[in-house]
Amino acid sequence: MTDHSATDHSATDHSATDGSVTAKVRLAVVGLGRWARVLARGAQRGDVVDLYSCYSRSDENRTRFMDEFGIRRCASSYEELLGDPDVEGLILTTPNDTHRELIVAALEAGKPVYTDKPIAQTLEDALAIRTAVTAAGLPFAVGHSARRLSGSRVMKQRIEDETLGGVTLAEANFSNERGLELTPDTWRWYLDKTPGGPLIQLGVHHADNLQYLLGPVAAVSGYQRKLFTNAEVPDATMTILEFESGALGYLGCGWASPGVYQIRLQGTKQNLMYDLDFTHWDEAHEADEWSSLVSQEYGQQDRTPLVLPPTDMFREQLEEFALATRGQAEIEVGVDEAIRALAVVHTAIESNRLGGKQVEVAPFLDAIGRTEG
Amino acid sequence: MTDHSATDHSATDHSATDGSVTAKVRLAVVGLGRWARVLARGAQRGDVVDLYSCYSRSDENRTRFMDEFGIRRCASSYEELLGDPDVEGLILTTPNDTHRELIVAALEAGKPVYTDKPIAQTLEDALAIRTAVTAAGLPFAVGHSARRLSGSRVMKQRIEDETLGGVTLAEANFSNERGLELTPDTWRWYLDKTPGGPLIQLGVHHADNLQYLLGPVAAVSGYQRKLFTNAEVPDATMTILEFESGALGYLGCGWASPGVYQIRLQGTKQNLMYDLDFTHWDEAHEADEWSSLVSQEYGQQDRTPLVLPPTDMFREQLEEFALATRGQAEIEVGVDEAIRALAVVHTAIESNRLGGKQVEVAPFLDAIGRTEG
Repeated sequence: MTDHSATDHSATDHSATDGSVTAKVRLAVVGLGRWARVLARGAQRGDVVDLYSCYSRSDENRTRFMDEFGIRRCASSYEELLGDPDVEGLILTTPNDTHRELIVAALEAGKPVYTDKPIAQTLEDALAIRTAVTAAGLPFAVGHSARRLSGSRVMKQRIEDETLGGVTLAEANFSNERGLELTPDTWRWYLDKTPGGPLIQLGVHHADNLQYLLGPVAAVSGYQRKLFTNAEVPDATMTILEFESGALGYLGCGWASPGVYQIRLQGTKQNLMYDLDFTHWDEAHEADEWSSLVSQEYGQQDRTPLVLPPTDMFREQLEEFALATRGQAEIEVGVDEAIRALAVVHTAIESNRLGGKQVEVAPFLDAIGRTEG
Repeated sequence: MTDHSATDHSATDHSATDGSVTAKVRLAVVGLGRWARVLARGAQRGDVVDLYSCYSRSDENRTRFMDEFGIRRCASSYEELLGDPDVEGLILTTPNDTHRELIVAALEAGKPVYTDKPIAQTLEDALAIRTAVTAAGLPFAVGHSARRLSGSRVMKQRIEDETLGGVTLAEANFSNERGLELTPDTWRWYLDKTPGGPLIQLGVHHADNLQYLLGPVAAVSGYQRKLFTNAEVPDATMTILEFESGALGYLGCGWASPGVYQIRLQGTKQNLMYDLDFTHWDEAHEADEWSSLVSQEYGQQDRTPLVLPPTDMFREQLEEFALATRGQAEIEVGVDEAIRALAVVHTAIESNRLGGKQVEVAPFLDAIGRTEG
């Protein structure tokens, strides 16, 4: 451990004169790989979250994480972590297929949970998590952070204030090279661990973004193909979304080309085009500087760059979750929003299985719910 | 008529020393509306085409056209035009649903034909035109000019020399505001005159562009919706294309938003993004100046603007056609390429009728051929 790991977190605590607790919120991080470090850096950019404890099955990850973030304690088992009365909530960054078991156990132990996206690997798991969230009545948040990027927020504002007029077509793309670099020792290589490939890993972000912007998706048509990767997973996917509003959406997600992160909205009064260099994604407080959002007015071809006020999506979502554990904030992306995003992914996979036939989301989800029930 | 209308076209004629005819090629323009004037300006930017004669049922259009282009003769009937032995070929710009009758009559009268896109309104008409082209053995060209834009040519070159690597996802969008401005006195208002709306009027360009770039489309899934227009036609369309190469393609075409003309190719080595301000489309010799094509290399986020050597799509296609009437050039976009583009449109319409089900292009076209036969 480094020196600052010995710092007592209580040194930064302070109590209000009315005796209410205003200390930092003590969160524990579970799964201590690369993504946990990205989120922990986000939390440490603010002064709301105390990275109080942690847990990983990997000694190497645990040591590295404690050293980097000055964490003084680490549980020797998940059960021990859940039994620690000082832990006010969990930050979960373990592989998708472990979410259900870990989340349900935490909620049953009375611990609020933030989990990274997707909420789970399967809709069955996601619905089981919903049951546990409802039963526990505890805060539960899912890291669909991309809607917090400044570009997403400005697009949302312009939809709500009708600057765009009616939205007719919405196009999004999130792609990168990962499929060309996968090896059999990573879980993303395998179809049963990563159904849909880039669609569940990247596309689920836009499945949330687009529903955040345009409301619920009613029906989905999906195409997933394996063209250039050696892995089991598809590396070329296209999905057509039909929104309840009537708007049509397109989602392109590939794992076999240079990286793209774009959202394009076509409205009756204005178009918006958002482009993000996501190589800066991990440093979320700088991501907006590497983004551009331009508008195009009715009857015009000129593009006008819009101002993107700075955001910090990782810090914001973790602080919101931390405060929610004390009833001081509302969770923006909870179990329902996260299931809605995952449902688009799995409905697209089902559509692909049916040869691209359009599949309605709600009945598909209901059928899974009945099977689970 | 203006003064220059009296200029004898033979003044610019010149004979080669071997006695072969090297005079300008005498073409007649049929249908003398706005588009005929755009093409005529293109032809007059070069010195290959002699706008020799013309025909329209509209006195007003005829007078305006003859005045603007200094044309000394205009036939009083289509039959008279076809009977003029000095006319070496036709430039046809009449509404889509008149193409079949006018083209077949011209070919039977021994006149080569250039027609604007789409080749016809229906595939039945297009197949009848193909039969007539084959029987006549005469040059026949279709104005899928967009593949001649500098951006299209550079993209094609980079696919052929494998700069892009394998193409995995291809996205195109061609949209404008027309659906919000349609009135019942224009043929584009009506579904039976403009099946697919923006898909047949705008999308057919990209149906050719994408097949020019990536080869034949094997199967199509189409969604066409009427959201904001008062007209009968759809104003929001999305189409997924599956190429024989395996690549997936997306085509967005709307008639209810500010104008967009884009092609984005994602390859295993490079991405290309093409963006055209098509308000300059009519002045084709300047269109490339209002375009941008940028590349993005594997592992990079930076975009590099590429040089677009100037082209003049309208002049080039009409000069190619003119020379082909004398056996001095090959037609680049003939009946087969044009049917391939129109087949994507109508297969998408059929797919939409079937609820978005993917439809294979070749069997769909064959079935229509058998019905026609």
